[in-house]
Amino acid sequence: MLTRKEYTAAKERAAVMIREAGIVITDEEAGRVEVADFGLSRLDQEGAQILTLVATDRIAAKIIALFEGQTLPEHWHPRVGDDPGKEETIRVVCGILRCYVSGADTLRDGFVPEGKQNAYTARQEHLLGPGEQITLPPGTKHWFQASAGGVVMYSFSTVARDILDQFTNPEVKRVTQIVD
Amino acid sequence: MLTRKEYTAAKERAAVMIREAGIVITDEEAGRVEVADFGLSRLDQEGAQILTLVATDRIAAKIIALFEGQTLPEHWHPRVGDDPGKEETIRVVCGILRCYVSGADTLRDGFVPEGKQNAYTARQEHLLGPGEQITLPPGTKHWFQASAGGVVMYSFSTVARDILDQFTNPEVKRVTQIVD
Repeated sequence: MLTRKEYTAAKERAAVMIREAGIVITDEEAGRVEVADFGLSRLDQEGAQILTLVATDRIAAKIIALFEGQTLPEHWHPRVGDDPGKEETIRVVCGILRCYVSGADTLRDGFVPEGKQNAYTARQEHLLGPGEQITLPPGTKHWFQASAGGVVMYSFSTVARDILDQFTNPEVKRVTQIVD
Repeated sequence: MLTRKEYTAAKERAAVMIREAGIVITDEEAGRVEVADFGLSRLDQEGAQILTLVATDRIAAKIIALFEGQTLPEHWHPRVGDDPGKEETIRVVCGILRCYVSGADTLRDGFVPEGKQNAYTARQEHLLGPGEQITLPPGTKHWFQASAGGVVMYSFSTVARDILDQFTNPEVKRVTQIVD
């Protein structure tokens, strides 16, 4: 859970980062940046700030801002009925993203959040700078981490059903609780 | 058809516009901006410059640059087999886009290219500025026009099969011929 103050501060910080990355968003959009602590209550270590630009029953386009050192927990997008699962392309706008997917362990620049070795099993490292992108097929385990200065990136995908995403860490809750 | 010189000039002009709009693209991407004259051989009046960022068999993300007064001809995205047709969200980054869709005739700020009344039947006008967007369901006839200073916009969509797009003007050819 997050306090209202933490939530608001993270939202505002993310909106500034998005705009400083040169991305044009309206004030209405800045006001609905979603702050996700994944139920882990340590936002600066594990969390993400997400602005959904497009969400139809066929596609989604989002902006994700990660603060310096912040890690978006390992997850994958499972099959849902006839849908083979979400296919997602991550395109970096600002900063260097550490992206980890299943495969040979090449983790070098990044780090697994302390005490969470079992929650981060994908260790193939991809470092992506501005204008660089990676496409993650459905079912691929992946996690993200922002290096110095933080990262702003796009996520272009097939239909997003965030609530059905599966996380390696069983303690993750996709809904963020805010306490006043 | 376009001369090689016209093609290259339009490509370079579009890449500059995209970058001036604050969008981060690599040099490789700048070099593969597609210039489309739709077989009409009058690019400044009817045409578009398009950079494909993502094109999988499920989604597409593109950047479209239109020069001032340039019109992207009326077309629609038909059903293809099991696919109900391309669904597309246009999001403006820079400039004011005149977007026309089927519906009550409210055309006021824009204009139908001279002598092309029959090729532009959708006349419901939507003016979209930076950060504004519209979602076009499959099968919806639409055309775009850039007002003063030109327009840079994103197109987020389901799978793109440009060659199967249908145009109101039977003279349109989706492939641009370049002559040396």
